[in-house]
Amino acid sequence: MTDELKCIFLGTGAATPSLTRGLPSVAIVKDGRIYLCDCGEGTQFKLMQAGLSPTKIRYIFISHLHGDHIFGFPGYLNSQQLYGRTTPLTLYGPPGISAFYRSVAQLSKYKVDYPLDIVELDPEQMHELDCTAIKIKASSLEHSVPCFGYRFEEAPKVGKFDNDKANVLGIPNGPERAGLQRGESVRIGDRLVHSAEVVGDPIPGRIITYCTDTRPCETTRQLAEDADLLIHDSTFSDAYSDRAEATCHSTSREAAQMARDAGAQQLALFHISIRIQKEEESRLLQQAREVFENTLLPDDLAGIMLRRRTS
Amino acid sequence: MTDELKCIFLGTGAATPSLTRGLPSVAIVKDGRIYLCDCGEGTQFKLMQAGLSPTKIRYIFISHLHGDHIFGFPGYLNSQQLYGRTTPLTLYGPPGISAFYRSVAQLSKYKVDYPLDIVELDPEQMHELDCTAIKIKASSLEHSVPCFGYRFEEAPKVGKFDNDKANVLGIPNGPERAGLQRGESVRIGDRLVHSAEVVGDPIPGRIITYCTDTRPCETTRQLAEDADLLIHDSTFSDAYSDRAEATCHSTSREAAQMARDAGAQQLALFHISIRIQKEEESRLLQQAREVFENTLLPDDLAGIMLRRRTS
Repeated sequence: MTDELKCIFLGTGAATPSLTRGLPSVAIVKDGRIYLCDCGEGTQFKLMQAGLSPTKIRYIFISHLHGDHIFGFPGYLNSQQLYGRTTPLTLYGPPGISAFYRSVAQLSKYKVDYPLDIVELDPEQMHELDCTAIKIKASSLEHSVPCFGYRFEEAPKVGKFDNDKANVLGIPNGPERAGLQRGESVRIGDRLVHSAEVVGDPIPGRIITYCTDTRPCETTRQLAEDADLLIHDSTFSDAYSDRAEATCHSTSREAAQMARDAGAQQLALFHISIRIQKEEESRLLQQAREVFENTLLPDDLAGIMLRRRTS
Repeated sequence: MTDELKCIFLGTGAATPSLTRGLPSVAIVKDGRIYLCDCGEGTQFKLMQAGLSPTKIRYIFISHLHGDHIFGFPGYLNSQQLYGRTTPLTLYGPPGISAFYRSVAQLSKYKVDYPLDIVELDPEQMHELDCTAIKIKASSLEHSVPCFGYRFEEAPKVGKFDNDKANVLGIPNGPERAGLQRGESVRIGDRLVHSAEVVGDPIPGRIITYCTDTRPCETTRQLAEDADLLIHDSTFSDAYSDRAEATCHSTSREAAQMARDAGAQQLALFHISIRIQKEEESRLLQQAREVFENTLLPDDLAGIMLRRRTS
């Protein structure tokens, strides 16, 4: 198992697709599992184009019920059934997501035989979800309908074992070293050696925060605190700042201010309006970089490999 | 206005998409209007890729409620709203299509301000629908759920005006000739000249028949009688004929037999299973051509221009 953590932008557009930007969906890939954020129409095609196996999705996190964020999931669930999926799938989202699934499934006459768990989150609460190797926090953003932002945080990794120190302390190769690596103390002769003497500080887990659709808000600041990557609503450039406010979205500059204020390491501008033509994209990016230098504007199918800050 | 009638295959796959075949949808284009057959997930992307304006769709014909045929229409309707559509749209389909639309719209909180008419067809009846320049017949096929086949028939075109004959008869240029062209009789001196004397026989309208998903059936034979183009369920090759029967689909050979029996001019194999890999496709096509030579296997985005049989 590698230590990779990557983020694949499947669809990066907003509301209506363009020839270059599909509808919102981001795959976070760790240990062969996919944690999927939103599932806009066409997500199952994008997964194929990205070379990601749709069966590897174990968790889906829906931000809100607007069609551009959810119209891909009935087709995805249906295809998984036809492929004979047996792996469990858990889907988190706002109230109504379960009724949406049930009515679509019933009317289009499909059923799901694999274990499918749909969990509706309470918009009034901060949620902590434990999803295999990743802890997730979910909390309400500021949009025109209930909408969740998600913070994905890896478990910390055990620190580096210092072989030189261990040799000096006369610790034999074998179970003693393994015990120390696991954080245990071991007796060597008449001396108790503690783990911290030969094992470095735990290496913090990487953090990805996904906040769209939203106005800049305190929730996002909390979810994005010290994040390695913040993926933020950036529907508009400065030229459309009134429209961003009126439609409960953000400009790229506002996304950048958020990344800066939260102490994030990197910002990915996301959920780009079809009003932003190719020539306007460079302005959108520039306006963000004036505030927060380490900003990217991923295209559909772009990937970001997250490096650990220390090793 | 040109006399063109063309058929653009937007998505040609079945059930689950592949990298090369999207989900079912066919655009029939006449006089700048699009008559859309089915609307699988991703149809709005395919329309853009085909260079067809989504706003030009005036009528949508849904065969049945299985997800691969309908999961693109909520996104399409939603996008049209966001684009500020004002043109009316009429959608025909089996019972349940209206509830599907309503529940998806309600749960995903979108509304439609343009005139949208959703008409549920009775599976027990043969329907005749008058859709601007095209008359449509709709009738039930043989599938696992209620499923309609559609026959699209252009109005006949007025025959060719014979200028030489008109000159001999001494008919002046002007309203007399226009009247004769419209089928009227006109008095020239003391003689009544009838339209048929100078105007050729009406030129028959072109006919496109769309029948999927279905076993070969008598309804299809009727709908495809003398059609210029039959688009038929061809989910499987001979190698999967048992599966075709078990799942209420057709093999390419059965589609070809239907084209032959109905006296169609041309057959397009459609709704191709992902089981049919690229190397199996040539067999699928060959098996059909053994029965009916004029068979095509359109890829996504392929177009067929229908020529008039006489001019």
